[in-house]
Amino acid sequence: TAPFLASEHQHIRYNPLQDEWVLVSAHRMKRPWQGQVEPSLLETVPRHDPRNPLCPGATRANGEVNPHYDGTFLFDNDFPALQPDAPSPGPSDHPLFQAKAARGVCKVLCFHPWSDVTLPLMSIPEIRTVIDVWASVTEDLGAQYPWVQIFENKGAMMGCSNPHPHCQVWASSFLPDIAQREERSQQAYQSQHGEPLLMEYGRQELLRKERLVLTSEHWLVLVPFWAVWPFQTLLLPRRHVRRLPELTPAERDDLALIMKKLLTKYDNLFETSFPYSMGWHGAPTGSEAGANWDHWQLHAHYYPPLLRSATVRKFMVGYEMLAQAQRDLTPEQAAERLRALPEVHYRLRQK
Amino acid sequence: TAPFLASEHQHIRYNPLQDEWVLVSAHRMKRPWQGQVEPSLLETVPRHDPRNPLCPGATRANGEVNPHYDGTFLFDNDFPALQPDAPSPGPSDHPLFQAKAARGVCKVLCFHPWSDVTLPLMSIPEIRTVIDVWASVTEDLGAQYPWVQIFENKGAMMGCSNPHPHCQVWASSFLPDIAQREERSQQAYQSQHGEPLLMEYGRQELLRKERLVLTSEHWLVLVPFWAVWPFQTLLLPRRHVRRLPELTPAERDDLALIMKKLLTKYDNLFETSFPYSMGWHGAPTGSEAGANWDHWQLHAHYYPPLLRSATVRKFMVGYEMLAQAQRDLTPEQAAERLRALPEVHYRLRQK
Ligand SMILES: O=P(O)(O)O[C@H]1O[C@H](CO)[C@@H](O)[C@H](O)[C@H]1O
Ligand SMILES: O=P(O)(O)O[C@H]1O[C@H](CO)[C@@H](O)[C@H](O)[C@H]1O
Repeated sequence: TAPFLASEHQHIRYNPLQDEWVLVSAHRMKRPWQGQVEPSLLETVPRHDPRNPLCPGATRANGEVNPHYDGTFLFDNDFPALQPDAPSPGPSDHPLFQAKAARGVCKVLCFHPWSDVTLPLMSIPEIRTVIDVWASVTEDLGAQYPWVQIFENKGAMMGCSNPHPHCQVWASSFLPDIAQREERSQQAYQSQHGEPLLMEYGRQELLRKERLVLTSEHWLVLVPFWAVWPFQTLLLPRRHVRRLPELTPAERDDLALIMKKLLTKYDNLFETSFPYSMGWHGAPTGSEAGANWDHWQLHAHYYPPLLRSATVRKFMVGYEMLAQAQRDLTPEQAAERLRALPEVHYRLRQK
Repeated sequence: TAPFLASEHQHIRYNPLQDEWVLVSAHRMKRPWQGQVEPSLLETVPRHDPRNPLCPGATRANGEVNPHYDGTFLFDNDFPALQPDAPSPGPSDHPLFQAKAARGVCKVLCFHPWSDVTLPLMSIPEIRTVIDVWASVTEDLGAQYPWVQIFENKGAMMGCSNPHPHCQVWASSFLPDIAQREERSQQAYQSQHGEPLLMEYGRQELLRKERLVLTSEHWLVLVPFWAVWPFQTLLLPRRHVRRLPELTPAERDDLALIMKKLLTKYDNLFETSFPYSMGWHGAPTGSEAGANWDHWQLHAHYYPPLLRSATVRKFMVGYEMLAQAQRDLTPEQAAERLRALPEVHYRLRQK
């Protein structure tokens, strides 16, 4: 039989962080695509639109008027999925019908006063300001809530309903499902191996090199061995850092730089404003924040849907929803393509 | 404080079958939607197109010519994600870099010779034929493989690249991730409670009634208590049945009928050919088929993405990908809406 080649021979890989398997069938990129193509991006977002509720000076759904902010702007989501005061459903009467109380807060963070920029087109100091707000909102909401989920849905394809550059922050009274999985895995790894899972993982990837996309003094970006989305990446600090507020000023400046480089590469890949969902995971907060969370390592996940071009995405449907995630190119192939891309944004080059 | 109302007060619910939690925030349906709308459906699929590789008499990518079939047609996928003979990646050298061999077979099953019909527009005997092939392909591939995943991606929105009515069958040498979760949960429930999880669950739903959509002599359709997708349903036999081939002729006829009713309701909900991914789960097969799998109950999951209309879907993005699934109406509200819909297809009514 032929020797094993990851790019030719399907196999399954294990995600030790989220305890999941993925089917890697890279030979599948050869099939023609006749399915849905996404609408091309509206390239004509106006810099300022007084009817856009995220713009400076605009009136929001609840009648409030936004300040004429000139940096970032953090405010309460007008349609929050989590509210601070929902009553409890009470005790469950059957093990198959379990419900629990959920309380929390949802905020929106505008990154910039202009609607026609995105993070990779912002300056390093502007990105640094966003990072500082991420840290402070984690600190503020984390005083009360055990989990503060910062996430950005970018692009209409990712369900983002407003082109103005922004992210969301949902803090909850419970540890969400994926946080629970990462907690269990990191806890188990630490007790078996005596060090944090993601510290050892980052070190290994630095040695193996084939999945690295970017490295800097304080950070690494890589396509994880177990990536599900075609160009998924993991952003990790080199130092053992449990939560965003612990980042030093130097680490924050360096983070702004590496984020700008990564997101520029993403935009350059298909010469489009690259859609994705991204989010930060760090040690739980709230009243248990003082417990031992040394098994946690801060990290961000980037999950971009595009597969072949600016308009052809990967669909996580049928087999993926009913059986197991499946990907069509190897993580190593994805990392190689991302590594090879320029760090200057295509829209700035064209000028 | 106000008394708890599931439709007004967010809470979390537990999925005991797949060991996952979902955030239910039904008050969120009140927010306006300004995000992506899906392209309207091309209503003009030709009944026969000789260039469509799924049509009778058409030439496929590998040069093979389809027979002039007049019922169903089962053939090997020309771009299979799983092949029978892939070499093994060999032993893993580190616990964070685990890969394993994956072997299998991918097949495509055309439901009907015409491209312009879908299951709800087919006759009961025609649907019954599809069910018989589902049973026989499970038997055939299950002789060798431990898992035979039958799934249908319907609609361009669900990554379906061909409008011809068809499903897929992927058989694998491994138990996929979601099968493993359902195995663990059903096994644990049986050993704790002495009966299959889904048998007790179906019985409870028959008593509680509020999540039932359809019932027949041999089957139930309900919106599970822990549903994630807006109009997700679970299709269950009343009798304890472990796998599709065990279904009696009467159960198969009745299944054809209840499927037609369910899919007609789905199409009627937004007067569109309702997109979804669906699939069957039953006890593992292969060399261990003879072991005790009594904790398994056969079932089908339907996962439809639409939320508000034929063109506005639920996006499972940001919070859902990074933290936890979230839904915008209660399962009870969804069941009530589906129950109220007529069982005659809107396209037949309009004639
Ligand atoms: O096999 P198809 O229909 O070409 O492809 C579709 O279903 C597959 C199985 O769910 C997915 O992996 C693909 O992303 C999707 O586009
Ligand atoms: O809050 P938004 O941007 O209106 O909505 C978007 O993000 C939410 C959180 O990931 C999702 O629940 C919605 O489905 C999505 O459309």
